[in-house]
Amino acid sequence: MNCNPAPLFPELEDLGSASGFVDEIRAIVKTLPLFEGFNHQESAVFCSYMKCFGAPSRATILREGDYGNFMLLLLTGSVNVVKGTPGESKLVAQLGPSTFLGEMSLFDGQQRFASCITNEPTDFAILTRDSLNDILLDHPRLGNKLLLILVQMITSRLRETTKRMLPTVIGAAI
Amino acid sequence: MNCNPAPLFPELEDLGSASGFVDEIRAIVKTLPLFEGFNHQESAVFCSYMKCFGAPSRATILREGDYGNFMLLLLTGSVNVVKGTPGESKLVAQLGPSTFLGEMSLFDGQQRFASCITNEPTDFAILTRDSLNDILLDHPRLGNKLLLILVQMITSRLRETTKRMLPTVIGAAI
Repeated sequence: MNCNPAPLFPELEDLGSASGFVDEIRAIVKTLPLFEGFNHQESAVFCSYMKCFGAPSRATILREGDYGNFMLLLLTGSVNVVKGTPGESKLVAQLGPSTFLGEMSLFDGQQRFASCITNEPTDFAILTRDSLNDILLDHPRLGNKLLLILVQMITSRLRETTKRMLPTVIGAAI
Repeated sequence: MNCNPAPLFPELEDLGSASGFVDEIRAIVKTLPLFEGFNHQESAVFCSYMKCFGAPSRATILREGDYGNFMLLLLTGSVNVVKGTPGESKLVAQLGPSTFLGEMSLFDGQQRFASCITNEPTDFAILTRDSLNDILLDHPRLGNKLLLILVQMITSRLRETTKRMLPTVIGAAI
């Protein structure tokens, strides 16, 4: 398994398995309507496949253009989502705890669309593609629930993004 | 199970279970890179949970604003994807065989984003949310393969849509 992004982000503090953060993660996950179907045991199993890291302020925890196959769940703190080169970067969004980041690259292995830079000390859990595959292999019914949650989350983002881009699509040459 | 959209679209010809179209669907599915992990038996099981319909030309097989919980796989023919009222509708896309339609509403149960109107006689298979749930219950490992395929497809659309809307996002107030 390749759960550890430390070679990419040596400034990060390794907080170990997310199993040490089950209660915190369960508290966050319970606030996400999509996760309401996860009971305590399922949350614990899910956490056992994730690792946690602590980043200081102004740390780049996802870098635009990098290839990546992991997703983040913000536990504390906040990040700026920016695109562009340093000095010419544009703010795309500001995101806080309970937010998933990097889910597109988890599933398609393509380059990160934007960078995520911490605004303050920020802890997060990561789920890698290898760990997701292990969950599907070891716990297929939990895998069903997890994939349904992720597909609903990505669908929600697709619907929102599609609505926002509508003026640029209508009438476009196909 | 509620696999039959006939009350919504009485003009459609009910072609029965997709099990009668396994070879056709498998031939299409084999052209989809995401489905390469489906073997013949898995394709047959997948098909047994879908139904097929035949629509004449100029039939509305998805209607903007309708609530829906099923997805279509085009087997033959083609459709125009349009938004707006009749007479003032704008073409969004033209799509042919091997295309999935309506996957957002399958997962979020929300209104159809656009209408799909056949350009010619068109056959398609439908997968309802109930049928998807049955697959997950009866065949959790196959269900995970299917969900991985669908999440990859939706991720691909999200990445493409996000790229296209970028000029409207950058610099926007968050």
